Amino acid sequence: MKFSPLFWPIELKGTTVNVLDEAILPHKVKYIKVRSYKQAHKAIKDMKTRAVGQVLLVMYTFLLEIKKNKSNLSEKKLREIAHSLNSARPTLSFKYLTDMVLNLAQSPGPLDKKILGFLDALKNARIKQAKNMSTALKDGDTILTHCNISGLLPLIGDFCRQDKKNLSFFVTETRPYLQGARLTAWELYRAGFKTTLITDNMAAQVMSEKKIDKVIVGADNLAQNGDIANKIGTYQIALLAKYFKVPFYVICPPASRAKTGNDIRIEIRPDKELLEIGGLRLAPKGARGYYPAFDITPDKLITKHIYMEV
Amino acid sequence: MKFSPLFWPIELKGTTVNVLDEAILPHKVKYIKVRSYKQAHKAIKDMKTRAVGQVLLVMYTFLLEIKKNKSNLSEKKLREIAHSLNSARPTLSFKYLTDMVLNLAQSPGPLDKKILGFLDALKNARIKQAKNMSTALKDGDTILTHCNISGLLPLIGDFCRQDKKNLSFFVTETRPYLQGARLTAWELYRAGFKTTLITDNMAAQVMSEKKIDKVIVGADNLAQNGDIANKIGTYQIALLAKYFKVPFYVICPPASRAKTGNDIRIEIRPDKELLEIGGLRLAPKGARGYYPAFDITPDKLITKHIYMEV
Repeated sequence: MKFSPLFWPIELKGTTVNVLDEAILPHKVKYIKVRSYKQAHKAIKDMKTRAVGQVLLVMYTFLLEIKKNKSNLSEKKLREIAHSLNSARPTLSFKYLTDMVLNLAQSPGPLDKKILGFLDALKNARIKQAKNMSTALKDGDTILTHCNISGLLPLIGDFCRQDKKNLSFFVTETRPYLQGARLTAWELYRAGFKTTLITDNMAAQVMSEKKIDKVIVGADNLAQNGDIANKIGTYQIALLAKYFKVPFYVICPPASRAKTGNDIRIEIRPDKELLEIGGLRLAPKGARGYYPAFDITPDKLITKHIYMEV
Repeated sequence: MKFSPLFWPIELKGTTVNVLDEAILPHKVKYIKVRSYKQAHKAIKDMKTRAVGQVLLVMYTFLLEIKKNKSNLSEKKLREIAHSLNSARPTLSFKYLTDMVLNLAQSPGPLDKKILGFLDALKNARIKQAKNMSTALKDGDTILTHCNISGLLPLIGDFCRQDKKNLSFFVTETRPYLQGARLTAWELYRAGFKTTLITDNMAAQVMSEKKIDKVIVGADNLAQNGDIANKIGTYQIALLAKYFKVPFYVICPPASRAKTGNDIRIEIRPDKELLEIGGLRLAPKGARGYYPAFDITPDKLITKHIYMEV
């Protein structure tokens, strides 16, 4: 089983956390060096890493600070780190993670060992999740996906290959950050899957042409009632999938404290990020944009949640 | 009444047809010089002009060739010009135009005068169409639009202003060619309308937030049963508008010979145009794309057609 670099994009080496810089993929594969929780906060805020990378960065940041302080991290300091990480992005719920670390610190035994144990369980749970998703797929299936699910799609495809099932993929480019074009198409293509890129406005067309058998997306936040928050554009793909009767699967993180999607605050990002691409200005001078970074897909549009079994 | 440069983007001066280069807007306002029907074919094929610009270019190209040949254009030559223009792009029906010219050539009187008469009627019909659309709108309406309707939106907005109705606009950027960002946002902003750009995957979100009162789009081809072909992405906006109960208006060209949308051939363009933006490569090396340039919106999703009364 070969892993996409996006499956586990963060590593701790000595007192440096190496963070795969997802903002410059696929043109360069480069790791940013994070040496403090403040640098970690900035890396999250600047969207250098996303999705599972953010979870890993939160955990590795605690490990880093424990190491730097030779295992003598006060509760006050732990709370300071937790607060800094939690405030990096509004829609994402790191609180369950940082609360977990604060709780672990209260239990007997060295905190770093317990965090490493958690990371190990997380890795296994993600592999299991890919395996579970693969069982719902058939040989010859063409999957439409949006944004990026942190290395899980190539893994799902590999599990299918083991069962002699071949998958093809359609990938929305996922404006404005182009995670689909830059990350998903890249990791699928390098793993040898037939991958076709479309713009975000072609979803209905490819479904109406019956090119798509299933939709698989990830989620940034899973509410307790099954609603999810995911990258902007997920909601309309879910509505279209319903209309065209295409099954819609969601690879979920552990549920957050949000009771429903209404409890999830949608982050509105600076419109500058939408008005240009890679420094290239698209829009006329003076024009304004609106950039909700996520949307809510209600439970009723989701054919099946693939939960994480931690 | 001030007109957008996109309302009438082509002019004949002497033996040169000046074609507004829409490919480089909004950064530069430049006119390409077309001096033969072969150059006109190329300008259409390269998408230097679109929509009504293409209609005008077809007609001005005949006027140009008539002028160059001192009004002595053989029927054979006329047919040669018609054939060349008709073959520039598959989805668009210029045949009704070139047939009209061939028919006009059979009737008494100088052909150039008859073509000029047609152009004059077309201009008046478009102004009337904008006026008709404006009567369906209310003060405070926010309009979502896709791609570009060749200068009609600012005109619709101006007719509304005359009736003391203020409009605001949300504009999808319209990947891959970004006509929304480059053309529509530009012409609306310079005409003083509140204009907000969104990416194509935000349509459902802005509708669900009840930011949109009406959708207005154009059409590249109107079938006899009311189905339309328009820029890729129109169909999914129509489906979403139906779901969110937002009225969906289409500013139509004269009907083509297509009986239904099924009779309209969808042009598949080179995927290179989708894999990069302004020369900037977005997708990983080796990745492929799929680029249907148009889609079909069925009549049943259209709240009201605003027909052209020629």
